[in-house]
Parts: sequence; structure tokens; C-alpha cells
Amino acid sequence: MEKSEVNVGLLGWGTVGKSVSKILLSQRKNILKKSGVNLNLTKVAKRTMPVEGQDVDLPNNCLTTDPSEVVNGSGIDVVVELIGGVDTAFDLVTQAIENGKHVVTANKALLAERGAELFQLANQKGVFLGFEASTAGGIPIIKALRESFSGNQIQSMHGIINGTCNYILTQMHEQMTSFNVALASAQEKGYAEADPTLDIEGIDAAHKLSILSSLAYSTYLPFDKIYVEGITKITDKEIQYAKEFGYVIKLLAIAKMTDSGIEARVHPSLIPERSILANVSDAFNGVYLVGDAVGPTLFYGQGAGGMPTASAVVADIIEAGQTAVGGLVNLKTGGWTKEESSEVEISSIAEVKTRYYMRLVVRDQPSVLAEIGQVLGDCQISIAAVTQKDSQACDTVSLVIITHKALEKNMDLAREKLSKLEVVEDDFTVIRIEELDFDNT
Amino acid sequence: MEKSEVNVGLLGWGTVGKSVSKILLSQRKNILKKSGVNLNLTKVAKRTMPVEGQDVDLPNNCLTTDPSEVVNGSGIDVVVELIGGVDTAFDLVTQAIENGKHVVTANKALLAERGAELFQLANQKGVFLGFEASTAGGIPIIKALRESFSGNQIQSMHGIINGTCNYILTQMHEQMTSFNVALASAQEKGYAEADPTLDIEGIDAAHKLSILSSLAYSTYLPFDKIYVEGITKITDKEIQYAKEFGYVIKLLAIAKMTDSGIEARVHPSLIPERSILANVSDAFNGVYLVGDAVGPTLFYGQGAGGMPTASAVVADIIEAGQTAVGGLVNLKTGGWTKEESSEVEISSIAEVKTRYYMRLVVRDQPSVLAEIGQVLGDCQISIAAVTQKDSQACDTVSLVIITHKALEKNMDLAREKLSKLEVVEDDFTVIRIEELDFDNT
Repeated sequence: MEKSEVNVGLLGWGTVGKSVSKILLSQRKNILKKSGVNLNLTKVAKRTMPVEGQDVDLPNNCLTTDPSEVVNGSGIDVVVELIGGVDTAFDLVTQAIENGKHVVTANKALLAERGAELFQLANQKGVFLGFEASTAGGIPIIKALRESFSGNQIQSMHGIINGTCNYILTQMHEQMTSFNVALASAQEKGYAEADPTLDIEGIDAAHKLSILSSLAYSTYLPFDKIYVEGITKITDKEIQYAKEFGYVIKLLAIAKMTDSGIEARVHPSLIPERSILANVSDAFNGVYLVGDAVGPTLFYGQGAGGMPTASAVVADIIEAGQTAVGGLVNLKTGGWTKEESSEVEISSIAEVKTRYYMRLVVRDQPSVLAEIGQVLGDCQISIAAVTQKDSQACDTVSLVIITHKALEKNMDLAREKLSKLEVVEDDFTVIRIEELDFDNT
Repeated sequence: MEKSEVNVGLLGWGTVGKSVSKILLSQRKNILKKSGVNLNLTKVAKRTMPVEGQDVDLPNNCLTTDPSEVVNGSGIDVVVELIGGVDTAFDLVTQAIENGKHVVTANKALLAERGAELFQLANQKGVFLGFEASTAGGIPIIKALRESFSGNQIQSMHGIINGTCNYILTQMHEQMTSFNVALASAQEKGYAEADPTLDIEGIDAAHKLSILSSLAYSTYLPFDKIYVEGITKITDKEIQYAKEFGYVIKLLAIAKMTDSGIEARVHPSLIPERSILANVSDAFNGVYLVGDAVGPTLFYGQGAGGMPTASAVVADIIEAGQTAVGGLVNLKTGGWTKEESSEVEISSIAEVKTRYYMRLVVRDQPSVLAEIGQVLGDCQISIAAVTQKDSQACDTVSLVIITHKALEKNMDLAREKLSKLEVVEDDFTVIRIEELDFDNT
């Protein structure tokens, strides 16, 4: 086996496991290029074998029902624990570490309850234990705390780290619905379990805060030292009155360094609606972290779901793999040097397709909009909205136009044609629009 | 020298250099604990020696005017280039790498113009070349792209990565001032240079986009392939009309993967005011990144300034140091295991001091506010605002009170006393307020 080859075994093949295997299989070349490790998905242990005819999309002989083939398999370098729960997961992870395997887990309950034992064993055995996916899904907040902010004293963290609660509170705020209606909506959308206790009572957030604050303050801050209060007592009245005072109600996981020690608490809070954290809505997560050097920062993204969680799991698998093969740090520049560079086309600005804002100063006469609309139409540009504004000069007006998506080269043509129209008085302004609609970019 | 000891030499001792030395000297113990490396600040090369009596706060014999003592010094493990400019910096960095030293730089012009050569040499020599501070200051976006999102195809990036332009556009949007007035204000606050061309013409943002998009797409995307348009043509009219349509104007650095190739462009854009990126205001930076697995994410923080930049430089120094001593990955859990845990007090919730929102249902009679105010005053709680709301029952009203900061234990006492008042009809609601005012937390 070449030095860059790393064999990966998964324990568990639910939503996250399937997403992890999908990424490992489809992104193998890109991952090799970016990180210098060649990840082979070698074994996947699941509770039962798939029924005949079921599409599994895994390499041959990859599936097993025996987890010991993963944790004891002689060829496996990295074990990925995705079965959840505490006891069985603990036994399997312990066995893998004892065997000298690097381990990646997304299991926050395992860490919150038995993390200290696992990290101690991992340190003894000199293996990597990754847990980026355990908190805030795809948001790399663990890496930020473990690495990026190591030169900082963390002054405070305010986390929206339970997507269920954030969805419920956002619904209550935006739709002015009651707690129960919002909870039902969360359940319908799959954001809340049939028994939502762990989420709405703040326990899930407190588990995650235990992990984040332990890292931030280099001190073991167990779950049972965290003050916890859920969102079940928040009524639509509270939401409404808070709004009138300029506040939004969020379930916050808070850790702060104060003169009298570390505060660690989870409870609903009013926060100013103008703060960037107040804009973390729906099922999204956000961690607002203030360091003495870096100042205030926000990390925002999806805190749950198969693919976002798998994104974090795969990052840890790569780091475990780099540890396994050793000394690949310089390859992390992947793509920067010309030799490594991919053959990818770089588009000309002429081929860019966006919506546009246009402002034209035109003569105030009846035909003008028709003439302009004609030119735009000839150039394949259609108008989404238009308003007329008074200009300084009394015989001219400003037209402000928002277009639908159009090609830049068509807009260039339109500008040229419009500038030749007699009714267009002045040079005009064109600014591109980015809708930031992530399904649509 | 012990295995964990790493000697660090700085080239340049301006604003960032002084902040870096301050962190290295004051946070040495914390950094050792978090990262396993013991960073010795050994040499600092600056242009001229300080005049007698000037306070330098550096170890004895640390200062020199000869940069070769840093790049050729036999004891130096990590060289930190903070002199700026391209030619001299390139020569010194090259020499350091040739000598097998790990290098950290914050110099985006150096990378944008000669990065490919430097990375090639670093790869040959097997040394770490860190550049987190080159883009977006203290925000760990380079690490996110190099490591956290390696399993993702980056679909798009929309970056507000020039603080000067963002400050100017925010002033124009919020104060409705002209471009020139906003620019003068930026210059007065130190956010803009006397000659602001590099910033306001989008060139600085394009340098940074070259770095970000090269990493995101594993392809060398040089500055001269990026379409660049600055903000000088944006008038207060555009800001106002955009606002009327529900948009904010920002200078965006955009990279997108499309069917026809990679788009890379810097120009002013309208973005929806409800988007989280629109809330990146003043001199702050924000990068909105969408990956196929992770979905949409936002990284937000200070993109410039001595301490935020130093935060990123120090993170790279630590990583370079870990590379220098090798195999310390398992120590990154610093603080998680009980043995590593710091002796830090964990505050009781009773000692927490916050503002409070309270809602009480009370009898609608004249004395009520006086009675409640008396109780709160007796408990050292002062009222910041109060409003009266009609209740369902005709002889009661709701009082909504916002307090100044008070101790939780005093609030507990107040709750107990208030519940005994005859005028207080019902159980009442108390929710904590977090102002998220980072100078004040």
C-alpha cells in the first residue's frame, strides 16, 4: 500500500453514514488532491444486511453485520463511529483505540458522558480522536476552538446550537404562532422528534455547550455543571413584547469568562434584533464567539442533517488519515502551485448571468418606457420591476429597473444601444444583483 | 531543547508584529496547553533599533536590525514574515525556506504575485507555509477551505473581504451620506489610507479572492483573470433606490462553479437585506460559502487590525510549530481530559449578572407600579423601561419591564417577594437579556 493510502471503516450506516460513504466514494480524487490522502472505504458495519435487490452503492464485500471487522480489522486505519448511543459506542471506540486506530465520531452524548476516558486513552495510544461533527453539524467550530483561536483568551460564546428550538422560535417570531403550533410544524418538517424533550428542554444544547466550553476554557466542564432551561415557557406574548422593545428571543448556549469564574448556561434570551446573531433563523445554527485578540466572530451554517454532518465527519477522516500517513502538511496547499492546478475553465465576465439593477435618466415623455423596454427585449433582457423617480432637471426623470437574470454580454449590448437612444439623457448606472439563494446560485 | 520547544523569529515589528509578540509572550502557557508546543520568541528583526528609553517589552537580545539573524539563525524553527511588500519579502522567505524553516506570512500581495513559486519551494523542502492572516484577518477561512471543507465541492463564495469599502457602503446606507463624505469618515477612523485606490477600486479584494478561489477550486486563479470593479461609481441615489427594493449594496468578491467554468469577479452588488450577509456591516468582513455537502455557511469577523490579524498569525505559528516538533495531534484535546483540566471556578447561575425582561399580570389599580418598583428596588434591581399591556381579564393588565443589569440571586429574591404581593395576580415570566455588546460582556 502506498504511503498516501488510508483505509476507512464505518460503524453505522444511517442517514449520516450513507452521506459519508457518498462523499468518500464521489470525492476521492478531489480529497487526494486537497489533502494528500487517498481514502479507501473498506468496511461498513450495519445492523442487518440489505435485502436482495436493494441498491447499496458500496464497493463489493464492503458491508458486514459484524462491527469487529471494523474495529479489529487489520487493514483499517480510521474507524468512524456513527451508531449513536453511549454504551455500545463506547465499547467499540475503546476497542478501536486499543488497536491503535484513529477514530472519528459525531456522537455528542458519548463525548459528554465518557469523553474524558476516551481522550485519555487516545492520548496514551497516540491516536487522533476527531469530533467536529458532534457540535453544530457542518460548522467547523471545534477546529476553530482547537486550532484557530489557540492564541486567544475566549471572552464569551453565545451559541444557537439547537436547530429544533431555533426553528420553533423563528416560526413564533415571524408567523406569530403559538409554541404548540410551531412545534407541530417542526415535527412535520422533520426538525423535531415525536418526543422533542431533549431539544426543547435545552438538554441537547447543554451537551454541546459542555464540549464547546471545555475546549474554549481548557477545563473539563461537564454537562451537570451547566444551568439548563428550555423554551417551553415562551409564549407568543413574550415574542411579541420582546419584538416591541427591539429584541428577538433565541435559545442560547452561553459560556463566559468573568472575574468570578466561568459562566456556562443554556436558556432562552432576548437579543437585540440588529445583532448578527439575531439573523440566524430557522433550523440554522450560529456561534458568536469573542476572543481577546480576534474580537467578535460568527460561525453560521446547518447544525444537523446527513450531508452537513457528513461534511464535518469527512474533514475529521482526512485529518485522521493525514495523521496515519504522517508529514503531509505541505500538501495542504493543493491547487495553489501550477503543477497541482486543475484544468478548469475560468469564465469570462461576458458569460456571467445575473439580475441587474439599472438607473437611467430619461426625458419625461410618454414613449420612453416603451422604447427602453423594446431595446432590453431585443437583447433578451426582461424587466422584473420598474419605478420612476423625479430628477433634478424638471424635464427628466430617473427610471429604476430591476431585471430578471440575463447574460452580461447581452447587458453590454443593451447599454450600447440604450446610450444611442435620444430619450436617454445621461450615462446610466448598472449594478449586478446577487440573490444569495443557495439553491439557485 | 525539549521536543515541544519551538523558536520563533519575526521579520518586521509594526502593528501586527507587536500584536504577535504580545500574544506569544502573554499566552505562552495557554498555547502550550492547547497545542503542545512551547513557543519561544527568539529574534525580532526591525529596520532600526529603538531609541534609548523606549519600552520594547521583548526578551533581552531579541531585537536586531539584521534580518539574516532570523532567516539564517541556526536556532530558529519558524520565520514569520510581517514586513509587507513583495521583493524583499520574497527574498527573505525564500532564504528561510531554503534553510528548512517553516514560514508564516500575512502578506497577500506576496502570495498573489509569487505564491506559486513559494509553495513549490515549500513542498520541495517539506516545510509548512502558513497564510491564514493574508485574507479576512482573524477569520479562519483559509483553514476552512484547506481542511474543513475538503470533502465538499464549493458551489459559491460571496465575500465581503474589504473592510474599507464595507465601512463606506454601510455609512452611505445607514447615514445616507455621499460616497465622498463616507470615504472621508473612513480615512478619519483609520479604515482608509490617504490614497485609498487599492481598496475602493476593488484591487485588495481581488488579491484576496485570488487566494480564496485558488484554494476552493484547486486551481491557480491569478489576480489578472479576475474581473474587478470598485465602488467609486456608487452614489447615494443607488443606495436609496436599492433600499426601496429591499436590497443593500455591498462590494462582493464572488467565486462560483458554473457549467461553463469558474466565475471569479469583484464588483458592487445588490443583495437582499434579509440575507445574513447583508448584516455584515461597518469594517467587518464576512464570507458566505456554499458547499455541496455542508450547504450555506457564513464566517464573520474583523478582517484587519493588529490583534485580529495576529490571532491568525499565531494560529499558523502554532501549526508550524506542531509540524516542527511532529506528532502532537493528540494533544489538541487540551483541557478535555481531567488531568489537563485547568483549575477554573465555574460560576453558579446565582452569580450571573444580566438584564431581564419581566412580564407580570397585575390588578389594574393605581398603586401597583409603585409596589412592584419598591420590591425591585429593595432587591437592587432598577427598571430601564416599562409598558402596560391589556390582559384578557378586564380587571387585570400585563406589565412588561426591562431591567438594568442585576444579579440572578437578587432576581430570585424579587420573584419570591413579588409573588407574595396581593396585586400580582398570576405567576410571571422572567427571561434574561444578552446585549451581545462585545466591549461589555
